[in-house]
Amino acid sequence: MSKLVIVGTVAFDAIETPFGKTDKILGGAATFIGLAASHFNIDAAAVSVVGGDFPQKYLDLLSNKNIDISGIEIVKEGKTFFWSGRYHNDMNSRDTLVTELNTLADFKPVVPENYRDAEIVMLGNLHPIVQSSVLDQMVNKPKLVILDTMNFWMDSALEDLHNVMKRVDVITINDEEARQLTGEYSLVVAARKIHTMGPKYVVIKKGEHGALLFHNDNVFYAPALPLEEVFDPTGAGDTFAGGFAGYIAKTGDTSFENMKNAVVFGSTLASFSVEKFGTERMENLESEEVHNRLLQFKQLTQFDIKLS
Amino acid sequence: MSKLVIVGTVAFDAIETPFGKTDKILGGAATFIGLAASHFNIDAAAVSVVGGDFPQKYLDLLSNKNIDISGIEIVKEGKTFFWSGRYHNDMNSRDTLVTELNTLADFKPVVPENYRDAEIVMLGNLHPIVQSSVLDQMVNKPKLVILDTMNFWMDSALEDLHNVMKRVDVITINDEEARQLTGEYSLVVAARKIHTMGPKYVVIKKGEHGALLFHNDNVFYAPALPLEEVFDPTGAGDTFAGGFAGYIAKTGDTSFENMKNAVVFGSTLASFSVEKFGTERMENLESEEVHNRLLQFKQLTQFDIKLS
Repeated sequence: MSKLVIVGTVAFDAIETPFGKTDKILGGAATFIGLAASHFNIDAAAVSVVGGDFPQKYLDLLSNKNIDISGIEIVKEGKTFFWSGRYHNDMNSRDTLVTELNTLADFKPVVPENYRDAEIVMLGNLHPIVQSSVLDQMVNKPKLVILDTMNFWMDSALEDLHNVMKRVDVITINDEEARQLTGEYSLVVAARKIHTMGPKYVVIKKGEHGALLFHNDNVFYAPALPLEEVFDPTGAGDTFAGGFAGYIAKTGDTSFENMKNAVVFGSTLASFSVEKFGTERMENLESEEVHNRLLQFKQLTQFDIKLS
Repeated sequence: MSKLVIVGTVAFDAIETPFGKTDKILGGAATFIGLAASHFNIDAAAVSVVGGDFPQKYLDLLSNKNIDISGIEIVKEGKTFFWSGRYHNDMNSRDTLVTELNTLADFKPVVPENYRDAEIVMLGNLHPIVQSSVLDQMVNKPKLVILDTMNFWMDSALEDLHNVMKRVDVITINDEEARQLTGEYSLVVAARKIHTMGPKYVVIKKGEHGALLFHNDNVFYAPALPLEEVFDPTGAGDTFAGGFAGYIAKTGDTSFENMKNAVVFGSTLASFSVEKFGTERMENLESEEVHNRLLQFKQLTQFDIKLS
C-alpha cells in the first residue's frame, strides 16, 4: 500500500439543477477526491485551506473517513472558498453564478511532514503554480503524480500549466479541454500531443460517454454506467480522479493493465456521486454497493468473443 | 447458419467532407448492410430497386460478395435513388443537399421465393409501410427481425412506424432519434419506453461514443474504437446493422450474451467503413484485418478486476 497526498479545494458549493437547489453545502475537489479515495482504506492526507466559517463537522466527516486533515490550514479570520453554479436541463453544461476565492487566493499548500515521502500525489484542480509547489515539497520523486486541471488555467496561466505538466505522469482532463489544449479535434491525436507535453498517461473524461486512458499506442475506453437520472454532476470528475488515485495507491501497481482497473473504479465511484446533491451519496457509500456496481460494470462492458 | 433477408436502398451517393468530395458513388442502406454481412459468409439476399442508370459493375460487386441480388428490381426506364450530403467540420452532423427518390418512390419490395423462410430479417431505413410489406411476405415468423429507422419517419409517418415497430424484435436508432421518439432525455428511460412500443431489444447508436444494447434490465455498452480520423461517416450506421445482423445469422443465437458479440462485430466493422469514402473500405476488407481489429477492441474494453 502507498501513501496518497491529495491537494485541492475544500469548499462551500451552492448548486441548482432542474431537480432542485441547495444552500451552501460541502464541496471542493479535495473533498470529493478524498471521499472517493477513502473507499480503499489507504493512508491519505488532504492538503487545503478553509476559513473560520468552515464547520467542524465537515472536518470531522473527512477525519472519520480516515483522511489525515493536518494539512488543511484553517485561516480563522478568513472565509472558505465558495462556488455556486446552475446546471442546464441536459446536465452536461452549467453556468457559474458565484466564485469567491476568499482564503484560496493566498493558499500556500504545506504537505504534512509524514506525507512528504508519499508515493502517489493527486493534484486536484488549482492554479498550476500552487500544484507545482506541492511537488517541490516531496522528498523523493513520487511513483505517480496525477494532475487534474481545467480550461480556466489554459486561458489564464498556460505557461504555468505547461510547467507543471512536465512534472506529472498522468493528466485527467475533459474532452473539450483536451481539444482546447492541443487544437486537435480527434482525441487520439490530442492525447498524442499531450504525451509530448509531459504526461505519459492521458485520461480524457467524456462525462456520460465515459473515459479514455491513453498510453503511447495503448488505449482503454471505460464507458459511463448508463443512469436513469443524473441528479447533480458536481464533483463527478473529482470522484473519478479520487477513485483512480486511491486504487493505484492501494495496489501500488502503475502498469497500464492496472490503470485500466483504476479507471473502472473511478467510473464506478463517479456513478454514485451524481445520484445525490454534492457529497451526500459518497458520505454513506457502503463497500457492498460498490462491489455490486462493479459487477454491473462488468456485465455492461465485458463480452466473450473467442479469437485465436 | 440462418438465411438473412436485407431490405433497403441501393443508391448513388455524392459526399462532401472536410477531406474532399466525391462524384456519384455506390451507396444505400442495403449496400452497406450487405457488404458488412457478407463478412460472415452467410446466405444473404438484398431486396431493393434501382434504375436503368445503375452500373452492372455495382451489381456484380454485390454478387461477388455472395449476396443474392435477385430481389433487386431494375426499372429500366427509371433512375436510381440519389442522395447528396455535406458533413460539417466535426463530422457529427451533416446537411442533405439533394434527395431524388426516383425509382424508390414506387418501390414495392419482393422477397425472392427461396428467402421467404429466412430466419433473420434486416429492415434497413425505408418508409415503415414498405418495411411492413416485407414482413407480410415471410412464410414463417422469422427468428429475429431487426429494424433501422430515422427521425424523418417520426416526423412524417409516425403511426406507420409504430405499426412496424410492433412486429420487430430489435430496433437500431441513434441517440437523438431515441429521444425524439420517446420525449425522454435519459437513454435508459427512452429504451424502456421503446420496449413498450414493441422491440424487446433496443440498440442506441451514439456515433463516436459507441452503441448501447438494452433488453429489459440488461445493458451492454460497446464504445466506438477511437479513431485518428473519421474520413466519411456515411453508411457507418448501416455497416453496424449489417455486422450485427450478419453475426446473428451466422451463429443463429439470439441470446443477450450473443447479441453483445453482435454489437461488437457491428462496431468493429463500422470502424473500417468510416476510413474511406462510401463503400471503398468495405469492398476490400480482409478477414485478417477484422480479426486484428477485434483484438484491438478487446484490449480497448476488457479489464480484469477479480470480484467474488
